[in-house]
Amino acid sequence: MLSKNELKRYSGLLAKKNREIEKKFIVEGKRLLTEGLHSEYSCELVCVSHQFNETNADIIKFVKQKNTRLEILTVKDLQKLCDTKSPQGVVAIFKTPDEPMDSFKESGADIIVALDEINDPGNLGTIIRTCDWFGIGHIILSNSCVELYNPKVIRSTMGSIFRLKTIRNIGLSDHLKTYKPTYKVLASDLEGTDVRKYKLRDKSIIIFSNEAHGLSETLVSQVDERVTIVGKGKAESLNVASAAAIILSNLVAD
Amino acid sequence: MLSKNELKRYSGLLAKKNREIEKKFIVEGKRLLTEGLHSEYSCELVCVSHQFNETNADIIKFVKQKNTRLEILTVKDLQKLCDTKSPQGVVAIFKTPDEPMDSFKESGADIIVALDEINDPGNLGTIIRTCDWFGIGHIILSNSCVELYNPKVIRSTMGSIFRLKTIRNIGLSDHLKTYKPTYKVLASDLEGTDVRKYKLRDKSIIIFSNEAHGLSETLVSQVDERVTIVGKGKAESLNVASAAAIILSNLVAD
Repeated sequence: MLSKNELKRYSGLLAKKNREIEKKFIVEGKRLLTEGLHSEYSCELVCVSHQFNETNADIIKFVKQKNTRLEILTVKDLQKLCDTKSPQGVVAIFKTPDEPMDSFKESGADIIVALDEINDPGNLGTIIRTCDWFGIGHIILSNSCVELYNPKVIRSTMGSIFRLKTIRNIGLSDHLKTYKPTYKVLASDLEGTDVRKYKLRDKSIIIFSNEAHGLSETLVSQVDERVTIVGKGKAESLNVASAAAIILSNLVAD
Repeated sequence: MLSKNELKRYSGLLAKKNREIEKKFIVEGKRLLTEGLHSEYSCELVCVSHQFNETNADIIKFVKQKNTRLEILTVKDLQKLCDTKSPQGVVAIFKTPDEPMDSFKESGADIIVALDEINDPGNLGTIIRTCDWFGIGHIILSNSCVELYNPKVIRSTMGSIFRLKTIRNIGLSDHLKTYKPTYKVLASDLEGTDVRKYKLRDKSIIIFSNEAHGLSETLVSQVDERVTIVGKGKAESLNVASAAAIILSNLVAD
């Protein structure tokens, strides 16, 4: 039984400030719940509708095996925990993981992705999903990005959020200094090497930034090499998630 | 002076059914207006706020040169024509172009993009922007895609919508038959040729489809060749706009 107070507190997690205070976040849907339960993230509570409970024996069994608290809610109460208009009958509360360390410098990763000014939740989630596809497990998010645990970001990751390690809310320029000389810093630019011809020789951090403004001046001073996506048409720029997909597909070679 | 009736009729264009009846659509913002005015699309009306009128002499002059009807509206009335919460003080009504021909078979294009079940407006707009970046000017939209003139699609194209020719609302499988043998049909698939090693030899139509459902059975029967984006991680799939970006960047070679 979920008390009225508990319901109120958990539904408060739909707001960013409460997620930051409580260090918890909400995920909706079967797929995200399953990915979360299989990850290192800690699940505090799973709430399901009567219908979901009756028609998803496998997941219910898995939740119970993990000794995770399970509550059956009315559809009306469940809706209070949902950001979407057509919820799928299951919602879960996860704990925000502690940030793993001061830096990924000693992580051993060949490629680290750093994101600056990625304000659109769909773009951030899509980039995280693309990183996961290409086996990139370490992402740095500057303090100018949209919050990682925003419900729309989580949905756009399609579950990849649970598999990647992140450093969040840092001033990117100062943070990048600590990686040198172990890591080279790479950015996309209109006047760099054609990314199809570029070969990664060193451990590298690749920066993707809001396409409208480009890299900030302090960040530019940290960049060692530049790559370009050669276009043929008249579009001024590519969407940042599309640009990230193209660049990563080229850099993550066999 | 825009009459009350006119304002009501134009604001009705925020709904899909009215756009289809009137064969007109709304764009918001300076950038989209400018791209539209430079295109082959016909602009019926430009509405601006007093502030926009006073601070954008260059655009106002251009609108007048083109003999396009210009009206200055109160911010409150302008808001009635806007889909966004923070409008930019300028809105324009364009006419939906007639579909150019029965087919792009005689277009001479080396690459045509065909889209099936692209339901998310942001994804559709982003794919159109990517096509424009790579110089692809012909796009076929099946009747299962989100409407091209949806305001969120238009915004996501960042103006590229005005530069590409489209065939819309067709049954894709039957339509594709008419292109053979002039065009080969290519699709992305988990078991195709690594796209980095694939070389286009023929004029080709490339299909991108909703990642959740994959290609429909009738479409599969039209596909001549398949390409794959090789991943290394655990993500089940890529976002369709990201996949399109990677595939097009590989196929549109120098």
